[in-house]
Amino acid sequence: MSERQAASARDAYRVFRTIPTRWLDNDIYGHMNNAVHYMLFDTSVNCWLIENGLLDIHGGERIGLVVETGCRYFAEMGYPDMITSGLKVARLGTSSVRYEIGLFRNDEPAAAAEGFFIHVYVDKKTRRPVPLEASFRRVLEGISA
Amino acid sequence: MSERQAASARDAYRVFRTIPTRWLDNDIYGHMNNAVHYMLFDTSVNCWLIENGLLDIHGGERIGLVVETGCRYFAEMGYPDMITSGLKVARLGTSSVRYEIGLFRNDEPAAAAEGFFIHVYVDKKTRRPVPLEASFRRVLEGISA
Amino acid sequence: MSERQAASARDAYRVFRTIPTRWLDNDIYGHMNNAVHYMLFDTSVNCWLIENGLLDIHGGERIGLVVETGCRYFAEMGYPDMITSGLKVARLGTSSVRYEIGLFRNDEPAAAAEGFFIHVYVDKKTRRPVPLEASFRRVLEGISA
Amino acid sequence: MSERQAASARDAYRVFRTIPTRWLDNDIYGHMNNAVHYMLFDTSVNCWLIENGLLDIHGGERIGLVVETGCRYFAEMGYPDMITSGLKVARLGTSSVRYEIGLFRNDEPAAAAEGFFIHVYVDKKTRRPVPLEASFRRVLEGISA
Repeated sequence: MSERQAASARDAYRVFRTIPTRWLDNDIYGHMNNAVHYMLFDTSVNCWLIENGLLDIHGGERIGLVVETGCRYFAEMGYPDMITSGLKVARLGTSSVRYEIGLFRNDEPAAAAEGFFIHVYVDKKTRRPVPLEASFRRVLEGISA
Repeated sequence: MSERQAASARDAYRVFRTIPTRWLDNDIYGHMNNAVHYMLFDTSVNCWLIENGLLDIHGGERIGLVVETGCRYFAEMGYPDMITSGLKVARLGTSSVRYEIGLFRNDEPAAAAEGFFIHVYVDKKTRRPVPLEASFRRVLEGISA
Repeated sequence: MSERQAASARDAYRVFRTIPTRWLDNDIYGHMNNAVHYMLFDTSVNCWLIENGLLDIHGGERIGLVVETGCRYFAEMGYPDMITSGLKVARLGTSSVRYEIGLFRNDEPAAAAEGFFIHVYVDKKTRRPVPLEASFRRVLEGISA
Repeated sequence: MSERQAASARDAYRVFRTIPTRWLDNDIYGHMNNAVHYMLFDTSVNCWLIENGLLDIHGGERIGLVVETGCRYFAEMGYPDMITSGLKVARLGTSSVRYEIGLFRNDEPAAAAEGFFIHVYVDKKTRRPVPLEASFRRVLEGISA
């Protein structure tokens, strides 16, 4: 189609998380279905936000709306593989954040899939964009690359 | 982030399918989670392939591996909305197909989300690309735009 | 294991809904995974509640907590089957409701799977049981069997 | 409804597995949706079978068809909780196995949910029951309780 970019190594990412696969991640072809990657992106980004005190899923006044996502698939993964997700912040806008995520199968050095995930922060009620707070930006800058 | 492209109208697509939402499509924010869109893309593309005799999910010798996907989200949708997916073929390569899909909420004229989905056809056993057959291309050309 | 009860016919149920299957409903065995049935139960029950004005998913003060569910599987279903769910209220307690649901594959007369789903109504904040209101019970009695 | 059985402690189970929750496990009520429990049951049972050489998901001639499942929900769990699943074999028939699974939230001693899962082993092609092999039974007896 187009010339394909090569898969990144683990050192392209800043923080990591282990995510076991589940039986239903595999579709009829016996590999992880392409939509499941996005569930893992969501989980990786939000876990990191929660652990860093940046997301209160029950009570926050602002929420991160996802405005664009994408994924390139380099190699198959699937249950019962153990997956490691790597995460970094690739761009910080006024009220938006672009995360990039690599998914690594078992002990393999190159990503089996890489994707991105753009959050725009909005007020929970009005759904209007709100600027990122300085303290919030500082934590995000900590995993920028 | 970047200037956002406007959402397409229904006439940007060639074939349509009605997909009811499910309770678990909504996440804690009360809207359809961003990964669910990809489940609907998969379902839309594969349903059309099956109905046109182009996919035998249990016995085919070649399978369409997904090598890249993406989605832009313009507006929220969620259970219990009824969704209409619009589908077209945007590009035909030697062994690959780029589908584009719009998801329309209830009776709304503009897409709530639009995405793409690139299949590369491979041999089920060897996982090596195989060229699209002429008869297969002809059917895909029928929904090209 | 134990002697198995026979599958019910459609007339065992009171209201019906058509639910198309999705690609990811199938697991590696090429049939609808056993957990997916419960997503369809949830969807069937809640759609009926919403259509009858009995559930406001964004603003209600009371929510129906699921305390027990179960399912017997008589026959395989799977994407791209069209499923019809049949629903009835099998028991009404002080603050609880037992729904029973049958899932019918395409045009088949006997259920491919049958299950139940027990809601206990609780206050959204305190999570303590609250009695069903008389007006609510009346609507539920309309599909009792 | 009926008098509810109390939740078991961890020592009611024989083998354990840690399963992180995912963002989409939570539904709009902010807790793990009732269908997700069944995905974890499937994952727990099948992981154990694979690790013990009892399940070859790509090449086996016999597959375990799920004929009945059920779950009682004692307490809410949800993302980002870490879940521990406990597993035991509760009954062995000629060609069937009843597994029981407890799901424990973070460090809590009592199960938040407990369920069962009955497999009948069938031939992959004919879908007819086949007796459990002696070597297979022996491994299952190792986690009977």
